[in-house]
Amino acid sequence: MRVHVIHGPNLNLLGEREPDVYGSKTLADIDAEIAEAARALGIEVSCAQYSSEGAIVDALHAARAAADVVLINPGAYTHYSYAIADAIAAIRIPVVEVHLSNIAAREAFRSHSVVAPVCRGSVAGFGSDSYVAALHAASKIPIK
Amino acid sequence: MRVHVIHGPNLNLLGEREPDVYGSKTLADIDAEIAEAARALGIEVSCAQYSSEGAIVDALHAARAAADVVLINPGAYTHYSYAIADAIAAIRIPVVEVHLSNIAAREAFRSHSVVAPVCRGSVAGFGSDSYVAALHAASKIPIK
Amino acid sequence: MRVHVIHGPNLNLLGEREPDVYGSKTLADIDAEIAEAARALGIEVSCAQYSSEGAIVDALHAARAAADVVLINPGAYTHYSYAIADAIAAIRIPVVEVHLSNIAAREAFRSHSVVAPVCRGSVAGFGSDSYVAALHAASKIPIK
Amino acid sequence: MRVHVIHGPNLNLLGEREPDVYGSKTLADIDAEIAEAARALGIEVSCAQYSSEGAIVDALHAARAAADVVLINPGAYTHYSYAIADAIAAIRIPVVEVHLSNIAAREAFRSHSVVAPVCRGSVAGFGSDSYVAALHAASKIPIK
Amino acid sequence: MRVHVIHGPNLNLLGEREPDVYGSKTLADIDAEIAEAARALGIEVSCAQYSSEGAIVDALHAARAAADVVLINPGAYTHYSYAIADAIAAIRIPVVEVHLSNIAAREAFRSHSVVAPVCRGSVAGFGSDSYVAALHAASKIPIK
Amino acid sequence: MRVHVIHGPNLNLLGEREPDVYGSKTLADIDAEIAEAARALGIEVSCAQYSSEGAIVDALHAARAAADVVLINPGAYTHYSYAIADAIAAIRIPVVEVHLSNIAAREAFRSHSVVAPVCRGSVAGFGSDSYVAALHAASKIPIK
Amino acid sequence: MRVHVIHGPNLNLLGEREPDVYGSKTLADIDAEIAEAARALGIEVSCAQYSSEGAIVDALHAARAAADVVLINPGAYTHYSYAIADAIAAIRIPVVEVHLSNIAAREAFRSHSVVAPVCRGSVAGFGSDSYVAALHAASKIPIK
Amino acid sequence: MRVHVIHGPNLNLLGEREPDVYGSKTLADIDAEIAEAARALGIEVSCAQYSSEGAIVDALHAARAAADVVLINPGAYTHYSYAIADAIAAIRIPVVEVHLSNIAAREAFRSHSVVAPVCRGSVAGFGSDSYVAALHAASKIPIK
Amino acid sequence: MRVHVIHGPNLNLLGEREPDVYGSKTLADIDAEIAEAARALGIEVSCAQYSSEGAIVDALHAARAAADVVLINPGAYTHYSYAIADAIAAIRIPVVEVHLSNIAAREAFRSHSVVAPVCRGSVAGFGSDSYVAALHAASKIPIK
Amino acid sequence: MRVHVIHGPNLNLLGEREPDVYGSKTLADIDAEIAEAARALGIEVSCAQYSSEGAIVDALHAARAAADVVLINPGAYTHYSYAIADAIAAIRIPVVEVHLSNIAAREAFRSHSVVAPVCRGSVAGFGSDSYVAALHAASKIPIK
Amino acid sequence: MRVHVIHGPNLNLLGEREPDVYGSKTLADIDAEIAEAARALGIEVSCAQYSSEGAIVDALHAARAAADVVLINPGAYTHYSYAIADAIAAIRIPVVEVHLSNIAAREAFRSHSVVAPVCRGSVAGFGSDSYVAALHAASKIPIK
Amino acid sequence: MRVHVIHGPNLNLLGEREPDVYGSKTLADIDAEIAEAARALGIEVSCAQYSSEGAIVDALHAARAAADVVLINPGAYTHYSYAIADAIAAIRIPVVEVHLSNIAAREAFRSHSVVAPVCRGSVAGFGSDSYVAALHAASKIPIK
Repeated sequence: MRVHVIHGPNLNLLGEREPDVYGSKTLADIDAEIAEAARALGIEVSCAQYSSEGAIVDALHAARAAADVVLINPGAYTHYSYAIADAIAAIRIPVVEVHLSNIAAREAFRSHSVVAPVCRGSVAGFGSDSYVAALHAASKIPIK
Repeated sequence: MRVHVIHGPNLNLLGEREPDVYGSKTLADIDAEIAEAARALGIEVSCAQYSSEGAIVDALHAARAAADVVLINPGAYTHYSYAIADAIAAIRIPVVEVHLSNIAAREAFRSHSVVAPVCRGSVAGFGSDSYVAALHAASKIPIK
Repeated sequence: MRVHVIHGPNLNLLGEREPDVYGSKTLADIDAEIAEAARALGIEVSCAQYSSEGAIVDALHAARAAADVVLINPGAYTHYSYAIADAIAAIRIPVVEVHLSNIAAREAFRSHSVVAPVCRGSVAGFGSDSYVAALHAASKIPIK
Repeated sequence: MRVHVIHGPNLNLLGEREPDVYGSKTLADIDAEIAEAARALGIEVSCAQYSSEGAIVDALHAARAAADVVLINPGAYTHYSYAIADAIAAIRIPVVEVHLSNIAAREAFRSHSVVAPVCRGSVAGFGSDSYVAALHAASKIPIK
Repeated sequence: MRVHVIHGPNLNLLGEREPDVYGSKTLADIDAEIAEAARALGIEVSCAQYSSEGAIVDALHAARAAADVVLINPGAYTHYSYAIADAIAAIRIPVVEVHLSNIAAREAFRSHSVVAPVCRGSVAGFGSDSYVAALHAASKIPIK
Repeated sequence: MRVHVIHGPNLNLLGEREPDVYGSKTLADIDAEIAEAARALGIEVSCAQYSSEGAIVDALHAARAAADVVLINPGAYTHYSYAIADAIAAIRIPVVEVHLSNIAAREAFRSHSVVAPVCRGSVAGFGSDSYVAALHAASKIPIK
Repeated sequence: MRVHVIHGPNLNLLGEREPDVYGSKTLADIDAEIAEAARALGIEVSCAQYSSEGAIVDALHAARAAADVVLINPGAYTHYSYAIADAIAAIRIPVVEVHLSNIAAREAFRSHSVVAPVCRGSVAGFGSDSYVAALHAASKIPIK
Repeated sequence: MRVHVIHGPNLNLLGEREPDVYGSKTLADIDAEIAEAARALGIEVSCAQYSSEGAIVDALHAARAAADVVLINPGAYTHYSYAIADAIAAIRIPVVEVHLSNIAAREAFRSHSVVAPVCRGSVAGFGSDSYVAALHAASKIPIK
Repeated sequence: MRVHVIHGPNLNLLGEREPDVYGSKTLADIDAEIAEAARALGIEVSCAQYSSEGAIVDALHAARAAADVVLINPGAYTHYSYAIADAIAAIRIPVVEVHLSNIAAREAFRSHSVVAPVCRGSVAGFGSDSYVAALHAASKIPIK
Repeated sequence: MRVHVIHGPNLNLLGEREPDVYGSKTLADIDAEIAEAARALGIEVSCAQYSSEGAIVDALHAARAAADVVLINPGAYTHYSYAIADAIAAIRIPVVEVHLSNIAAREAFRSHSVVAPVCRGSVAGFGSDSYVAALHAASKIPIK
Repeated sequence: MRVHVIHGPNLNLLGEREPDVYGSKTLADIDAEIAEAARALGIEVSCAQYSSEGAIVDALHAARAAADVVLINPGAYTHYSYAIADAIAAIRIPVVEVHLSNIAAREAFRSHSVVAPVCRGSVAGFGSDSYVAALHAASKIPIK
Repeated sequence: MRVHVIHGPNLNLLGEREPDVYGSKTLADIDAEIAEAARALGIEVSCAQYSSEGAIVDALHAARAAADVVLINPGAYTHYSYAIADAIAAIRIPVVEVHLSNIAAREAFRSHSVVAPVCRGSVAGFGSDSYVAALHAASKIPIK
């Protein structure tokens, strides 16, 4: 199984950005944890970070050929990007929504996800372990 | 680590109830899968199902002495039981919200969870694998 | 045909509670009228009253084996109990919503029923004759 | 007792219009069932269908002299015709709201009835049996 | 000055309909009072009542040739007929909104008028004197 | 009959303030027109203007002894002063709401009047003739 | 192919009514343009204008036998006539919504169309060319 | 005078649960303070705590025979239990709403009480002194 | 302990104003009851009534030097005066909200208090006993 | 006349993406149909697809020099991109909104277009024929 | 250029009131800073503070003769005083809205200003420097 | 002090775009005014314009190393870009929101800013002088 992990805007500042909310690990630290967990599960994994909504749409399109499952943390785009939601619906491979923090416990606008209805499922609130738990769940999804 | 799993109302009908939404496994099947995953992770696990909101509040209170982490699938109570939310906030041990289906992709009233803001995190959309992935995430939560 | 009638919270106070809204008959009087109408229609009928939401969920589950049709007056639960709505959807036998008063003509919160979408139909506004009219309607529902 | 039955817009297409929602009976079939049930109850009945909101207002006015009770299925006017609601309030004879389908289970705009607050009661969701059950309920209304 | 008075649906029931809200005068009584007041003011007046929204639209169109000012009591259409509002906007002669009762003190839906924004002004709450006061106001409108 | 006219905030700028909305007459001009119309109707009239909400509340209280009817143009307070609304309800003498412009045709916030439900009636949209028409209507109110 | 064009309320005033919004062409001018375009496309066309909501419902019913496609400009009914929407859904032949002006750029209430969801498509904003463009689009719809 | 005090869900955790919000006294401490204040006022008092909504409904019904006044702190049920509100309305003896904390200063959902409209009055924000002040107010309520 | 009691607009009409809502006691009667209760509790009390929002703001500022606790019944200002709410937040001495009637049981706009979130607590619904009960609660507030 | 056609995000997946909604034609197929229709009308046409919102803003700016009319299908950006709406308003050349599907008949969020108010008109619901009909309409727009 | 600075309710408590929000400077300190900045810019400045809404309306009227530009910090009135907004619109001299704190980052009700639409511009969030920056901006406004 | 100025989408069209709203100066003109004001204040300034949301996120990240304060006019992104808001919150250096026009006086959607809550303050409504006033305010912000 090949899994592509898409990190959205501002996640490249992890470790520096509001550490009381997002923790002190950098994105490189998290990618290393994902890689280790993937190895243990026999999953081939790749990770990338994007600031631009259009770039995430393109990355999702590209994943049709390059991955069996996508893990996506769309950052703030979670809450208004119908373009990303349309891309997820269009590509037909399973996509899992991931969040470091428990978005339901934060500002009101973060409690609504426009991508959730077109994803297979979601994991949120466990810091970098959200990605690892999502990888476990993804590993159980039957691939056509 | 001791984990208590709370199944909410109507989950006792699993396997019979709307199988296109909830799958054909019974609750006993799911409890068996949870037990197996717990064994692999070295976690001591117990499961129970309740129809009554008050009984779930009492079960959460009881978990203070009997568990280190709670996994809860509050069923329909997810969407309006502030009493359960208050109980989760009151007991101070970590509670993880679990759903079989991707509630964000269903009826409008199911897209809002009143317990989410007081839980540690959530896993949804992977059928019985939601519980297993939640168990993996729970196993990483540091216990005081 | 076997019909089970479920009376929700506070209906046990009928005859005493706000008689200008609910009339002066007691619940026993109404159960007697239901029984008489059932006899005329050749229907086997049983009635029960419950204060607790969880008990109503359990009663609906039990009706799968014991009844062909359920008549339910969920009282105040009509307006917020998604747990009862889920139970009605889950049990697959036809359920008819009944109200003594014309709930649309009363307080705003009573004009919305969360169980209506999963019921077969509803009768409201005729006092105890609502149950009798519902019984007539139920007697016409084809039983699988 | 004399009962006048008012069918609203588009009901003349019954049998042809969306049969999965409204069934395959024509309006003539339904009027025949109503007539038969009325005969059994010793009720004198007349039925008419109208496309125009103003014509329904006039028919309600005319019913003051010609009927003791009115059964009305206002079709789509149910959801916005305050003119019909005012006519019902004005004529002072009891009016019963009838719907073939369970309007609460359909599109959102159909869950609100502006005529409901001024009707004596309502019956919905039993196909043509809705009219028959309403006739039973009407037969119990004391006529001044 | 020629004034045409348009009475909307249900006003033909005046004297009979909810006399505690609308008083005991009939529409003929009111038309007589209007005629008398018009004579005193040197105004040529005609009155008509319509149940149908389309008929009121047509009457407004016809008024372009036959009247200098229109007094309209649109009854329940006040609250939702954008068709009448469009007709008022289209005909360009001044139109005055009249109501017998104080619509703001009644049900919530009556506190919003969709025709008010395109009328010249409004008079409400004085029973039949609303028409007379409106006639006085109309007599002051300069006619092109 | 004694009538007291209360002009609210900013009406003292009439003639200078947005003349396309409010006309070019000054408040003194309007008071003169009111006085003339009152003379013709045999009404004793007094007029006053206030900027402060509390002063209007006090003026309404004082009117209990000094007037039989009050005409009030509360200006912007129309839309949020529940204190003035409470005063109108408290004093028990009839109060008529008056507006120069057709408030329903202006900004959204002006289409809601919190004082309307406790007034006897209202006249709006005829410039200074609104006061004169209101005086005619007031002269018909029976005084206890 | 036979096309019936239904013009809604107030459209008969075209050329006179608010020419800055609707242009200076009369409805006869527009019907002539439609006829000419239809000839060029080999389409048989008929046009009619109605003020009454009920008459439009009847015209839609009649179109089942007399037309293959309907073009409808429901005027103000666009925004609240669920009766017309139901008629469009019921007749099963394709109906295309047409507007002279760009309704989305006008008053807020005009930005919502209750008929749009049951139409095949819509054309708006091009004056009389909206009808011509709609005729082109209609000519491509496959007729069963 | 006999007073029954009903404590709702999660109040049994007082002293342990979020002490910065609810203080460090246990429910037993509070019941002792209530008993002492009752003694001073010559009131006979009894206290009970319930987790279940249905149990609170039953307790309210039972209070008809056993108490003259009820003090109720419905905990989280305050905000959604129409069943408890209906029970309060049904039993006809005066019920006083009590809250330890100032619920208006907390989360948004806590600022709306569905039981308040059917209670005699309310006291909130003074910790355990809320019960004592409510007892003083209750002692002044005339008992039929 | 020194307590200052602030009565808001229209409370000076007590005894005359809507006695079915507010009772037949005058404000002087109530001030006497407050004084008597204060004497019994060893509290130094002063009372004042204000019609103007600005005067209440000033009175709250003055209370910083002259009182240890403020009791305030802001009347209609309760529902919209953020200026009074800001003054309460600014002065830092404890302020208790008091209402004669149970505001939650009256018109919709009265169910929201903008001052409640910045007050220490509230008492409502017991007529003049609301002030007395509030005085008891105030006497328990520790003064810095 | 020169026309530039802007296709928004995810339209490059046409033919593959949800064919039951969007049909089986590819974007290349559609561009070919547009080119053929343009030839017939003597219009010079160019087409481009963009995933990024910023790129569409830039393309609209560029169109000032390179086109007389723009046809835009903004895809999901239709529903939230005020940046694109501002660009359309800024460039002053006529822009026509085009949609393949009848967006009003789909998910709720698709029924609101933030670009519609600043476009000249719109065509929706005819698959690729929407572009062709829009081209016909565009060909009638007078070019300054 | 003459500038009048209007400080609204509670600003007289500056330095004492919630210093973490509003800073430790007194209003006298701020007026001194404004005076110094005015001197540097060659502006004649006067400052005044008001608790009463009516007094602010009067001060704005007076400014017509006494100032070229007004700087106003309406305090809590910002969020609901349409009377002040009307006064600003009426006086026709430019008015600049000023806030010490960044009101958008505080309670929800503070994020809406009813005076903003009739002001020339606004400055917020820089403590007393908000006034100074506003003075710089005001000095650039051309005076008729 | 180093200040970076970020201009959002469509601002590159200034001078050409809707000059009645935005004035006739070009962006180059404004940048020159900013540079001149910066020189006078001894501030080192750089300016850049971006159409893409992602590019603005990247520019904010880059400013961490290259600037002490950021001035941002996010154009239409002001109203929906939570990605930009997150970037502002993440970078921890002070950011000031600037608008040429008084956005509160324009279309409804422009009255809400999603970036305002995470900015230090804002200046709006003075054309290019908004930037200059913001520079003055920025020059007073203490830099860590």
